[in-house]
Amino acid sequence: MSDDVIERLAALGISLPEPMQPLGSYLPVVKAGGMLFVSMQGPMVAGQPKLAGLIGRDLTADEGQLAAKLATINALAQIRHYLNGFERVRQVVRVEGYIACTEDFAQHPYVLDGASDLLAAVFSDRAGHARSLCGVRNLPGQLPVAVAVTVELQTP
Amino acid sequence: MSDDVIERLAALGISLPEPMQPLGSYLPVVKAGGMLFVSMQGPMVAGQPKLAGLIGRDLTADEGQLAAKLATINALAQIRHYLNGFERVRQVVRVEGYIACTEDFAQHPYVLDGASDLLAAVFSDRAGHARSLCGVRNLPGQLPVAVAVTVELQTP
Amino acid sequence: MSDDVIERLAALGISLPEPMQPLGSYLPVVKAGGMLFVSMQGPMVAGQPKLAGLIGRDLTADEGQLAAKLATINALAQIRHYLNGFERVRQVVRVEGYIACTEDFAQHPYVLDGASDLLAAVFSDRAGHARSLCGVRNLPGQLPVAVAVTVELQTP
Repeated sequence: MSDDVIERLAALGISLPEPMQPLGSYLPVVKAGGMLFVSMQGPMVAGQPKLAGLIGRDLTADEGQLAAKLATINALAQIRHYLNGFERVRQVVRVEGYIACTEDFAQHPYVLDGASDLLAAVFSDRAGHARSLCGVRNLPGQLPVAVAVTVELQTP
Repeated sequence: MSDDVIERLAALGISLPEPMQPLGSYLPVVKAGGMLFVSMQGPMVAGQPKLAGLIGRDLTADEGQLAAKLATINALAQIRHYLNGFERVRQVVRVEGYIACTEDFAQHPYVLDGASDLLAAVFSDRAGHARSLCGVRNLPGQLPVAVAVTVELQTP
Repeated sequence: MSDDVIERLAALGISLPEPMQPLGSYLPVVKAGGMLFVSMQGPMVAGQPKLAGLIGRDLTADEGQLAAKLATINALAQIRHYLNGFERVRQVVRVEGYIACTEDFAQHPYVLDGASDLLAAVFSDRAGHARSLCGVRNLPGQLPVAVAVTVELQTP
């Protein structure tokens, strides 16, 4: 059977990387209660931060949005690896966004649209997702954005 | 059948507003695993922030508590709209509070009681909820408080 | 039946304290969807913060790691009290870490290893857990670290 998420990613010129290894004694993906909980992902490319620093000081809102997109690509890579594709994903349940930004920054939703718009583009009517976000002081390795993604699985 | 949550809200002088539209490509409420995940809500009234700024600098702890209450009213408006009432809510599962405050602010629990006390008042023995909270740098549009609410549904 | 988590805690010299009472109108533990959601816990010992302040200014990364371990011990105390032991825990699903730190602090994963390593040591192949973390401005009572733990239960 074809996997329309993979096809839509390809149409957008996105090929999913190998999933990142965890940075400690935890798992990249945990399955529980019919859902997959993906550990927080950042805008890493080939094991290095593609973007670093505070949004509003070191990075623009557009760069923050790109960082959110890259972090989401890494979350998708984890899900693809765990499920061997996306056919078993019923819907995206939740995206929690952490945005490292300056005191007076206010465009958090614009930044996190980098995650939501990608999910909408590739999951279509399964993109769903409730969204939370906040402006944090910093993230590991001075990443500007990180996202935690939860998806629901099809019942067998 | 009567809906005791609606009745208790009315007794408190609270009428739920129309639910806010999402600010991007996500949903206000997602149902998964027998639970409703409500997107983060802030103290918006008629589409505008009722309170804005940092708690401890621009706002008092009491104003922060009011902001948490207003944000929770907006979460309730989302749930009411999704379920057409509250009868199908088995219990409130979780409240995650984000509090934009100054460096030395320490009364986070007092602020988030604006959410918890309202839930206790209207859901009574279904109010439950585990609680998390943290002091963040800022929130979208310089909101002082935002809450993400998760509820469990009655099994059919 | 023996409870291997209790035994492993004892082997590490850890005896679980009485669980903390909530600081407001919420519950320490909520069961929903086959999971337990534990309210955020900090490094309290005998009702007092064992460590307080910002990591990177008032506390070292090692002290932060200890704080994460102490917070996790308190989460385990809540679970033990709710379930009367750990035999019904199928796996740890999620750990969300909040780390109060200075602007340039970057060792968040090292700090939260205080939680993950303890869970790995005592739950062994049930330790699982997806992990999220962020650097926050502050936490209630100037706690340096807090953790929210979610576990899945065995099906009856």
